[in-house]
Amino acid sequence: MKLVFMSHEDKASLWREWLGKEMPGLQFLQWPGEVEDKAGIDYALVWKPEKGLLRTFPDLKAIFSLGAGVDHLFSDPELPEGVPVVRLVDRALTQGMTEYVLYWTIHYHRRMADYLRQAEDGVWQQHLQADTKFRRVGILGLGELGGDAARKLASLGFDVAGWSRGPKEIEGVTCHHCGEGLPAFLARTEILICLLPLTEETRGIVNAETLSHLPDQAYVINCARGPHVVDADLLAALDSGRLAAATLDVFHAEPLPADHPYWNHPKVTVTPHMASLTVPSSAAEYVAENIRRVERGEAPRNIVDPSKGY
Amino acid sequence: MKLVFMSHEDKASLWREWLGKEMPGLQFLQWPGEVEDKAGIDYALVWKPEKGLLRTFPDLKAIFSLGAGVDHLFSDPELPEGVPVVRLVDRALTQGMTEYVLYWTIHYHRRMADYLRQAEDGVWQQHLQADTKFRRVGILGLGELGGDAARKLASLGFDVAGWSRGPKEIEGVTCHHCGEGLPAFLARTEILICLLPLTEETRGIVNAETLSHLPDQAYVINCARGPHVVDADLLAALDSGRLAAATLDVFHAEPLPADHPYWNHPKVTVTPHMASLTVPSSAAEYVAENIRRVERGEAPRNIVDPSKGY
Repeated sequence: MKLVFMSHEDKASLWREWLGKEMPGLQFLQWPGEVEDKAGIDYALVWKPEKGLLRTFPDLKAIFSLGAGVDHLFSDPELPEGVPVVRLVDRALTQGMTEYVLYWTIHYHRRMADYLRQAEDGVWQQHLQADTKFRRVGILGLGELGGDAARKLASLGFDVAGWSRGPKEIEGVTCHHCGEGLPAFLARTEILICLLPLTEETRGIVNAETLSHLPDQAYVINCARGPHVVDADLLAALDSGRLAAATLDVFHAEPLPADHPYWNHPKVTVTPHMASLTVPSSAAEYVAENIRRVERGEAPRNIVDPSKGY
Repeated sequence: MKLVFMSHEDKASLWREWLGKEMPGLQFLQWPGEVEDKAGIDYALVWKPEKGLLRTFPDLKAIFSLGAGVDHLFSDPELPEGVPVVRLVDRALTQGMTEYVLYWTIHYHRRMADYLRQAEDGVWQQHLQADTKFRRVGILGLGELGGDAARKLASLGFDVAGWSRGPKEIEGVTCHHCGEGLPAFLARTEILICLLPLTEETRGIVNAETLSHLPDQAYVINCARGPHVVDADLLAALDSGRLAAATLDVFHAEPLPADHPYWNHPKVTVTPHMASLTVPSSAAEYVAENIRRVERGEAPRNIVDPSKGY
């Protein structure tokens, strides 16, 4: 069995080590140096591969994404047909994202920016504590990541709602769906968190119109993909005083260009697409299990539906 | 029915409003202005009352603390005997404390200080993400507050242990107890959180000897009481490079004096005893319910055992 690894961002050495522990019989070939013959390579484990490249591997049985999102694959117009594309669904990846969401939700809910500034300035001052029960948090996207974040926020006592394309049911979470559900969901949301997949339907979903439905002084946290947000609209809503603040982990161009207004905006916190990074020691287990399924003649888990793009 | 309210830190107007909604028949008297006759006052709702003062109210049926801790009452050598002292156990108070604990645990676990500094400096750099499953968090104190924090941390996938005076059982949490259990608990704890009651036994429990059991580069979070920590010992452990950082919400003297070395220490974050503030809209319900119990001839919930001090 042979696997080709393609990524400029993930550490090949760690994946080689951990996949090797899981599957000693697997030949791990790092692209491009270690690939002599594209024929006979069974699996591709990839992040942002060059467009048209995957099609040139004639024997692929499955393509594994190195991250939860697969927009980096479906943007390839020549993606080979008939080869299943598999999302990464991993305990550590989900836990990391939920940590990020909880951190920034509590940050805004408890005015931590004010307290951190006071700590630097040597100021001892308490602020009235908002009741968690009445803090309305809203999550766009209720898949693996959004669903887990919603459940954990609800277990902490927040008033949580979610929005997704199709109907969902999550205990303790008010679930809205489709286009009609969106304005009502937004109107009750003080802290908005985007965890949607990036598809043609969700591109630019955080825009002037949707932001106008949020209550005054709402917060926006985007840890999905940069193109979910229309940057000019978000900046306008922050500058007009309508929105209180935003934390952004993802951007149209990454790394975020040095001259982008987000970097120095007093209401924006930029993080470098680190909300949840793939942890090879944990994710290798998932990839190996899926390879074993294919080798047994079963379908891998978490195949992407190409018509939906997630 | 009459209640006397004594506090320099809590807002009497909010308590008057919310207790009034719960118990329209209750006379709310703010000390000292509104008390003409100490006789006939049934209940005291207090924070750090003047020593010897409570003893001068002859008819008290119960003394309610305005916070979770009751050390501010038991430090009064003339505390009237035979009058039950009641801890505040409140949903919002517990939720607030758990938020604080989660925030600072994630802050250290995910290197958020580094990311926040990078955001200010315009630096785009990811750091290897630690696996939550292998992050060992330890909580000193497994009462209302410590127990809730332990459960929520475990549900996020952290490797959680707790230590308490007597044996406890919490699902998903390794529970150590009494003096013999302490070194083993400390030796496995990378992020140490103090949520103990302040008693003669726990005073100074975070000292040179106990800190020496922690692994290298451990973190300390104290959101219980200042005197749990021997300041000179904690500073020495930070300065020697043994400890990575500390977040402190409570101090021997509060407000923390302007010249205290904690304020400007590069490894210390000071918060102004705000980890969890009492939320009157929520806590009034608890106090009212307990008053109703006493009026029905029942014992109030969460009476403090004077021999233990919690």
